[in-house]
Amino acid sequence: MKQLRVGLIGYGFMGRTHSNAFTQVKNFFDLEYQPVLKAICARDEKNAKAFAKKWGYESIETDWRKLISRDDIDVIDIAAPNNVHAEICIAAAKAGKMILCEKPLAMNGPQAEKIVAAVAKAKVPNMVWYNYRRVPAVTLAKQLIDEGRLGKIFHYRAKFLQDWTISADLPQGGAGLWRLDAKVAGSGVTGDLLAHCIDTALWLNGNIDTVTATTETFVKQRKHTLTGKMEKVTIDDASLFLARFSNGSLATFESTRYARGHKALYTFEINGENGSIFWDLHDLHRLQVFDYKDESKIRGWKSVHITDGDHPYMKNWWVPGLQIGYAETFVHQVADFIQGLSSGKMASPTFKDGLATDYVTDAVLKSAKTKRWEKVKKVK
Amino acid sequence: MKQLRVGLIGYGFMGRTHSNAFTQVKNFFDLEYQPVLKAICARDEKNAKAFAKKWGYESIETDWRKLISRDDIDVIDIAAPNNVHAEICIAAAKAGKMILCEKPLAMNGPQAEKIVAAVAKAKVPNMVWYNYRRVPAVTLAKQLIDEGRLGKIFHYRAKFLQDWTISADLPQGGAGLWRLDAKVAGSGVTGDLLAHCIDTALWLNGNIDTVTATTETFVKQRKHTLTGKMEKVTIDDASLFLARFSNGSLATFESTRYARGHKALYTFEINGENGSIFWDLHDLHRLQVFDYKDESKIRGWKSVHITDGDHPYMKNWWVPGLQIGYAETFVHQVADFIQGLSSGKMASPTFKDGLATDYVTDAVLKSAKTKRWEKVKKVK
Amino acid sequence: MKQLRVGLIGYGFMGRTHSNAFTQVKNFFDLEYQPVLKAICARDEKNAKAFAKKWGYESIETDWRKLISRDDIDVIDIAAPNNVHAEICIAAAKAGKMILCEKPLAMNGPQAEKIVAAVAKAKVPNMVWYNYRRVPAVTLAKQLIDEGRLGKIFHYRAKFLQDWTISADLPQGGAGLWRLDAKVAGSGVTGDLLAHCIDTALWLNGNIDTVTATTETFVKQRKHTLTGKMEKVTIDDASLFLARFSNGSLATFESTRYARGHKALYTFEINGENGSIFWDLHDLHRLQVFDYKDESKIRGWKSVHITDGDHPYMKNWWVPGLQIGYAETFVHQVADFIQGLSSGKMASPTFKDGLATDYVTDAVLKSAKTKRWEKVKKVK
Amino acid sequence: MKQLRVGLIGYGFMGRTHSNAFTQVKNFFDLEYQPVLKAICARDEKNAKAFAKKWGYESIETDWRKLISRDDIDVIDIAAPNNVHAEICIAAAKAGKMILCEKPLAMNGPQAEKIVAAVAKAKVPNMVWYNYRRVPAVTLAKQLIDEGRLGKIFHYRAKFLQDWTISADLPQGGAGLWRLDAKVAGSGVTGDLLAHCIDTALWLNGNIDTVTATTETFVKQRKHTLTGKMEKVTIDDASLFLARFSNGSLATFESTRYARGHKALYTFEINGENGSIFWDLHDLHRLQVFDYKDESKIRGWKSVHITDGDHPYMKNWWVPGLQIGYAETFVHQVADFIQGLSSGKMASPTFKDGLATDYVTDAVLKSAKTKRWEKVKKVK
Repeated sequence: MKQLRVGLIGYGFMGRTHSNAFTQVKNFFDLEYQPVLKAICARDEKNAKAFAKKWGYESIETDWRKLISRDDIDVIDIAAPNNVHAEICIAAAKAGKMILCEKPLAMNGPQAEKIVAAVAKAKVPNMVWYNYRRVPAVTLAKQLIDEGRLGKIFHYRAKFLQDWTISADLPQGGAGLWRLDAKVAGSGVTGDLLAHCIDTALWLNGNIDTVTATTETFVKQRKHTLTGKMEKVTIDDASLFLARFSNGSLATFESTRYARGHKALYTFEINGENGSIFWDLHDLHRLQVFDYKDESKIRGWKSVHITDGDHPYMKNWWVPGLQIGYAETFVHQVADFIQGLSSGKMASPTFKDGLATDYVTDAVLKSAKTKRWEKVKKVK
Repeated sequence: MKQLRVGLIGYGFMGRTHSNAFTQVKNFFDLEYQPVLKAICARDEKNAKAFAKKWGYESIETDWRKLISRDDIDVIDIAAPNNVHAEICIAAAKAGKMILCEKPLAMNGPQAEKIVAAVAKAKVPNMVWYNYRRVPAVTLAKQLIDEGRLGKIFHYRAKFLQDWTISADLPQGGAGLWRLDAKVAGSGVTGDLLAHCIDTALWLNGNIDTVTATTETFVKQRKHTLTGKMEKVTIDDASLFLARFSNGSLATFESTRYARGHKALYTFEINGENGSIFWDLHDLHRLQVFDYKDESKIRGWKSVHITDGDHPYMKNWWVPGLQIGYAETFVHQVADFIQGLSSGKMASPTFKDGLATDYVTDAVLKSAKTKRWEKVKKVK
Repeated sequence: MKQLRVGLIGYGFMGRTHSNAFTQVKNFFDLEYQPVLKAICARDEKNAKAFAKKWGYESIETDWRKLISRDDIDVIDIAAPNNVHAEICIAAAKAGKMILCEKPLAMNGPQAEKIVAAVAKAKVPNMVWYNYRRVPAVTLAKQLIDEGRLGKIFHYRAKFLQDWTISADLPQGGAGLWRLDAKVAGSGVTGDLLAHCIDTALWLNGNIDTVTATTETFVKQRKHTLTGKMEKVTIDDASLFLARFSNGSLATFESTRYARGHKALYTFEINGENGSIFWDLHDLHRLQVFDYKDESKIRGWKSVHITDGDHPYMKNWWVPGLQIGYAETFVHQVADFIQGLSSGKMASPTFKDGLATDYVTDAVLKSAKTKRWEKVKKVK
Repeated sequence: MKQLRVGLIGYGFMGRTHSNAFTQVKNFFDLEYQPVLKAICARDEKNAKAFAKKWGYESIETDWRKLISRDDIDVIDIAAPNNVHAEICIAAAKAGKMILCEKPLAMNGPQAEKIVAAVAKAKVPNMVWYNYRRVPAVTLAKQLIDEGRLGKIFHYRAKFLQDWTISADLPQGGAGLWRLDAKVAGSGVTGDLLAHCIDTALWLNGNIDTVTATTETFVKQRKHTLTGKMEKVTIDDASLFLARFSNGSLATFESTRYARGHKALYTFEINGENGSIFWDLHDLHRLQVFDYKDESKIRGWKSVHITDGDHPYMKNWWVPGLQIGYAETFVHQVADFIQGLSSGKMASPTFKDGLATDYVTDAVLKSAKTKRWEKVKKVK
């Protein structure tokens, strides 16, 4: 088996999901390449060492530029905050490394364009970690849609609801809280949560033409962890928009961290002439399917338990009825990336796909300011 | 339109459900006969008058024998406690009246046999108010089974769970509490709740051959409303049994008034070679259907919202999506009874069907004492 | 008991729900007045007679002006299409009749203003049939919010999804299909379905300040029942909007008749600092409640089965666990209207409340054209 | 970190779940010992090598006796069929090895007694892989019960429903199908599925005193994979029993592989005076809790999403809202086993606990033959 030598940048929540994926993938998928945990890079040496020990990384680096320059690294995996994605991606591309980058790809569309240009020029394999495409239920939804089962699409609706920032006592900025600082995160829930909804939607339902949006920051000031002072909150706490897709369907999108009772409730529903599909991250191992072709008097929403061998990815895991969880979606993404290397057909979402999502979030944030419908730029 | 002149005995909970059914049926069903609320009979004149005024009964009686003797009554409707069913039924039959009787038909099988003999001799139309057969979802279940859709049946499971007698401070006996007094009720949950489960099961799945049961009285003494003294509790608080049906299927049945969190959770499930059905009284307007013929990768339990025009009884009510409730099941039962009069084919469950259920509850109560499997007597 | 003599105009779906409510209310509620079905008015004499016979109306009229002029009528109940509401309401008010009017109150806000002025001048009791306020679960939601349990409100989301007009073969106009003809209905789903969502929202969450909307007509031409020709479809098939409430909360609203799999899925959710509430018309007897004060490790959404004596209206019906349906909401509305007559405090929603909803739908339809955020006019 | 050197016997479904647990545990839990995959033992050398390569085992063995004799192995992990558990356990104990054994512990109680005696004599740490105790929701149920929250227990009900053996064309015996051969499996669903239900029940609700049971073999003959001939099916396809616990509560237990529509539906519910709990393997990351202390009008079953840091084991995984799956329950079991080594307090279920379950299954199988209530032997 060939080696795929990984250099990871970042050791937070996403550093752990990626590391687990690199570790598990060989045990459950038969692939040409096997990830090898070559190096973990973090500014703080102590943290880097602790993470390396925990996960079995062979070495550490404290400067990502040094990591990129190493000959024994095949793929740079970026699990660092959003504001460093562009610089690292561009440098890694120049160094000829394959690149896996956490979402969103960049702070905004123009920045993402530069990243896309860099990897195009360097011709290096690349992928954004929009992992929800690899939930087996979501992948099955994609298959059903591609098979034309829903017919003409009329409606799409997605939401991503959380409730963890309601308390005004929660500080912003710093280690676990950079997502509340627009200078580091780019935006609030728009780039963090809506970006997931948008990536799935573009994949399942095609391009979005126009949007009208509104955003809100409910808590105006929070203590900043780094300065210790009360500072203006710069991110959007909630972001809602209406959209029109190129296929003529209408959509509502909503994300917030102020929906009491919801921890990570990402749901989407798509209604077509012949059927509908609903999915919910809180029960990610189920897909709700309505098939209009079913006999009228016993027609209803089917709760499909996505744990059978004929469901995407599931023959690689356990037996019918036994569910997988969140972590496995990253395993699938690594598996698909590696299969893309073998087949020569790069697995999605590529950086280009990541750019497409950034264009939508740009239009959403712009519309929230202009209070008008805004066109979404298309990826060329 | 012809009149069906009703004489009701009893004015409690069931007196109200029946009266509402007699009132509503003409507005929603096209029938040859229209119920006319002729008389309400109760021992207490004041109560009888109040009930008559509320519901529009034309007259009152305080002696059921007098009610039965009246020429202007076509049908005697018994909503009085279980211990008077037999005497009234037999007298009403002799008087040539049609009879509607609340469930269970009698205090036990031998008593029910006499009732059945009386109506057979008198050749009067008769029906037991096992109303759950007329929940549209349950009726649909019957249709699906009769169409052979489930194939060979392997399993049946039913339970009826309540929690209203957990408190030891609740008294027994008297007006609303005669169900806790075996002298009046015959038994506890076996005749009150399990009887419903058994009636549906016999209807859907055929005869039960043998049972093994256990019962329990959790609160041993309760104050008696009529005597004012602490007295031994004579009923069964919980009753569970295993059964074997004539068709080879195996079953579990359970009823209790000590299942915290359940108000009236009657559920049944039936598993066949080709499909399964589940129903739940707490959401009575839905039927869960699993159809093995559905395509494998989108196969799942369908939640069918039983509110369409092609669902049993539903074309008579509103529009798709708008649910009916508990009360309407009694309306359906009256409608079917009247259609039985018109067609000459008596609607079920007849008194014979009521006897069949009493035979099963007899066997259950016997097995709980003998601690052996007991055979269930068959109706000839 | 005093009489409340009813003159009903219209005999369609709503004529039936109202008639049932007038019939049932006296059997389940103790009130000062008892509705008497005095007359039914319909242009077609044969239809009027058939309806009168079915429901027990004492007389018929074929001209609503004549009905209004009768001395033996106390209340005019309008269950006729939207385009005649204004004329009848204004005439009935002048004649000093109490008025019950189906929703929406009028074809648009300016027309509704005239109706409101007429009843104000005549000082006659009035009510719009936004019946969903009287679903016990929804009434309970109102109580919980009024008690301040949710704290500051952040989000509101409502949708009303149907799927019955997807087929392009469905004609428009005429008897059962006037809701597809804007000349008769005023608008499509905006006035038919969104109006319900808006009425509930204004009741639960206060005024809406601004909206941005989009609408769509998926099937552009349909055969018209009255002309027999293919004609342009004039209504909106789908209508979506974002809103900002005066209390600072953000909202999404959506209605459509093209959401395959949903018959009448009206849902709303409201998220506050301390709790959240969700309700769904397809299981109208349940309320989902999230209470942040619950102990952390067993905190979750509670599915409350709204069938207990301490739930709104429910002590008047059956026993815990036994659900009511759609029809009972109209019974509750009549009961509340009558109690308003007795107490002198008119039950809501009054015509003023109906006007408020028309102002919102006006703004929605306007925004869909201007493609801008529009302010919502406030009722003075 | 100290090493815990593992020698695994068996490479099937359970060999994989154990191997994954040994691999993942160090990345998610801070423990004194780290499992090292020292050797995999399988009769077929080729299979052993393939498995070793896949999972990273350092060496292979083809004779388990040789594995046991190795000095570089600390713990023998048995994932081989039931009929070899006893011999291996006893030999491993004599060799002074710690032992992890798949469930059920033995073919029957008497055989299990010998195993228990052997480990008692050798004083070696031991554990049975009843992994469902380590589903966080189930562990939380245990905590709630131990805290006395449910009060006096009235009812317990459990079922484990599958549907994978309905087809009469499915053969018995051999590699993946030894569970259909009583000579290898000991029994059918009783030892395979009911054993899980019983283990959890004994843990949550204490001893079972008596049982009455019935079993059935629906398909009487199947082709045997090893002989190629049609042979009598020796296992029970379905097994149902009623039970009485020492604490006075009543129970129903059911397991089958003929419940169409259910893949691995293990559910249990426990009803106490003050509350109830329900859990379902098909949504293993949720616990349904009914708390009678909740305020009456908003009392209902809470669907608790067991993904928070204060839920058992969950602080070791991801963030609130992101679920784990089936595989993680084995990781938890290894973690607890290791913590037991460190603390000196052996983690449950020990072999003694496994014996207790075998005593119950013995009584169930006996009762199914005698058709009487049978006493359950108690572990001394």
